[in-house]
Amino acid sequence: MKLASLKHRRDGKLILVSRDLTQAVDASDIAFTLQDALDEWDTLSPLLQARYDALNANKASGRFTFHPVDCDSPLPRAYQWADGSAYVNHVELVRKARGASMPESFWTDPLMYQGMSDKFLGPRDNIELCDESWGCDFEAEVAIITDDVNMATSSSEAGEHIKLLMLVNDISLRNLIPGELSKGFGFFQSKPASAFSPVAVTPDELVSNWQDNKVHLPLSVHLNDELFGAPNAGIDMTFDFADLIAHAAKSRPLGAGTIIGSGTVSNIDRSKGSCCIAERRMLEILDLGAPKTSFLLYGDRVGIEMHDKEGRSIFGRIEQEVTPYGIAQQR
Amino acid sequence: MKLASLKHRRDGKLILVSRDLTQAVDASDIAFTLQDALDEWDTLSPLLQARYDALNANKASGRFTFHPVDCDSPLPRAYQWADGSAYVNHVELVRKARGASMPESFWTDPLMYQGMSDKFLGPRDNIELCDESWGCDFEAEVAIITDDVNMATSSSEAGEHIKLLMLVNDISLRNLIPGELSKGFGFFQSKPASAFSPVAVTPDELVSNWQDNKVHLPLSVHLNDELFGAPNAGIDMTFDFADLIAHAAKSRPLGAGTIIGSGTVSNIDRSKGSCCIAERRMLEILDLGAPKTSFLLYGDRVGIEMHDKEGRSIFGRIEQEVTPYGIAQQR
Repeated sequence: MKLASLKHRRDGKLILVSRDLTQAVDASDIAFTLQDALDEWDTLSPLLQARYDALNANKASGRFTFHPVDCDSPLPRAYQWADGSAYVNHVELVRKARGASMPESFWTDPLMYQGMSDKFLGPRDNIELCDESWGCDFEAEVAIITDDVNMATSSSEAGEHIKLLMLVNDISLRNLIPGELSKGFGFFQSKPASAFSPVAVTPDELVSNWQDNKVHLPLSVHLNDELFGAPNAGIDMTFDFADLIAHAAKSRPLGAGTIIGSGTVSNIDRSKGSCCIAERRMLEILDLGAPKTSFLLYGDRVGIEMHDKEGRSIFGRIEQEVTPYGIAQQR
Repeated sequence: MKLASLKHRRDGKLILVSRDLTQAVDASDIAFTLQDALDEWDTLSPLLQARYDALNANKASGRFTFHPVDCDSPLPRAYQWADGSAYVNHVELVRKARGASMPESFWTDPLMYQGMSDKFLGPRDNIELCDESWGCDFEAEVAIITDDVNMATSSSEAGEHIKLLMLVNDISLRNLIPGELSKGFGFFQSKPASAFSPVAVTPDELVSNWQDNKVHLPLSVHLNDELFGAPNAGIDMTFDFADLIAHAAKSRPLGAGTIIGSGTVSNIDRSKGSCCIAERRMLEILDLGAPKTSFLLYGDRVGIEMHDKEGRSIFGRIEQEVTPYGIAQQR
């Protein structure tokens, strides 16, 4: 199934989107919002599935053309956004660039932070920024959405709680991070709203590309129409999504609609490019002694998308432009 | 106005509670949930106020006896819970106890972390714990709830966004904190679900005790019926709630229903006692060379309440017992 939320008040209005992303049909009579659907997933998902099947067979009444620009993030706001850092290669590179070693435990104990979730950006919304000097960066990631997860759920049980997948642009303000992390309480001002792909999909949509609780496909990132990187999300992912859920649920249950991110996708094979500017800058520091690529400036555009092996877009495209705060304008 | 949420599905059912906390009346026809009310506060709060006035005049039809045990937290789940650390005295003490100095910037730049908000505990719910050795501690705090706050709102403008106040028991797993903070990404497993007071109140309910965006009353904490501390929340609060909102909104807007906590209330005057076990243990380390008070064990009970100068409870009482995970039982 592919689901999306049309922009409508604070929580959107649920629609189903055809597998090829061309057509859509209203689903708000089954569940008005995606959160409503997740709150009663076992009951409502069969009803959604039946309509989705009809849509793909061109038999759903009230079909309309799907326009990603009309979409909010699938969950326009959520009760939890927990972002992991599952590509430990990426973490090690960051540390190496500043001459620090990485604790051995990072290979066995996932890094995760609690992100803000009270208002995400839509997949085509501008990234409004008060100050270019804050060092705005994109981070392309994969994320999952869970149903209710009991406290102390193990990795081996956690996979069944993965109900939906999305892509993420986890926006970071790089130059605010060192000061903030040095205070010891993690990110706050340095992690403003993330944006998610137009469409959230059930794992079965990935067919054989979903295995071992990982997505085995390249995640492509464009900066101003130039390919910035396309590492494979299934390669070098030290912790799979079940591990990340189990980490999050160690000392508490997780509510339905919890979003968990993979962290910036990163492959050891450098020819695959990077999913964030910071990683490219680290490689430049290691290779050239100094970073060359600047962080995002007003007018820069970021595109994030994932295609199956036949070249078909799975989640639709995140496409955002950085603009000065106050000049709100949708693409 | 005093508002509460009866336990009902995931988001509760909104009621109004009389000023003396004895009577209540349904308000779910005006807004089914407190989040619904906050989403349209300007429109709905006058309707709620009219019914609240009738309730206090014994003129509201359908009045019933108010039982805090029937309550969930006012927002049973929320889109944002950002906890500050506004009593810098407390922070300095923690550091002193472990021989570390505190950066001077902590007096001018608030500490704040992003907390989990997908499922809070109700004010009388047990604190279910997998492992006593995790070092479970209470932290008594005051919190506010905002309406929508624009990005880059200044401290001088932020006060008008404070719509409601509550008390909080911000539960911490002390022995998980050092390992987690050393990873650099802040709290996650060490900060499970918080509990909030049965009732959320509008600032006018505090009358002259609400000044300069602070609550000028003692916050009393009981551990197993013994008074543990009653520091005044208006004293030694380095950053007021407007400062905390402005800090949170520096790089992003805040959605309606954002909860911001004061951090553990703490007075320099030691005779006032402490609002968490960790602070008492720090004082014991400073005085005796070693901590004496243990963290919470199964069966321990915590009570958190605030009274006005006439001795009337303002928010109702948080009253929780620590129990082994799996033995769910409401008091």
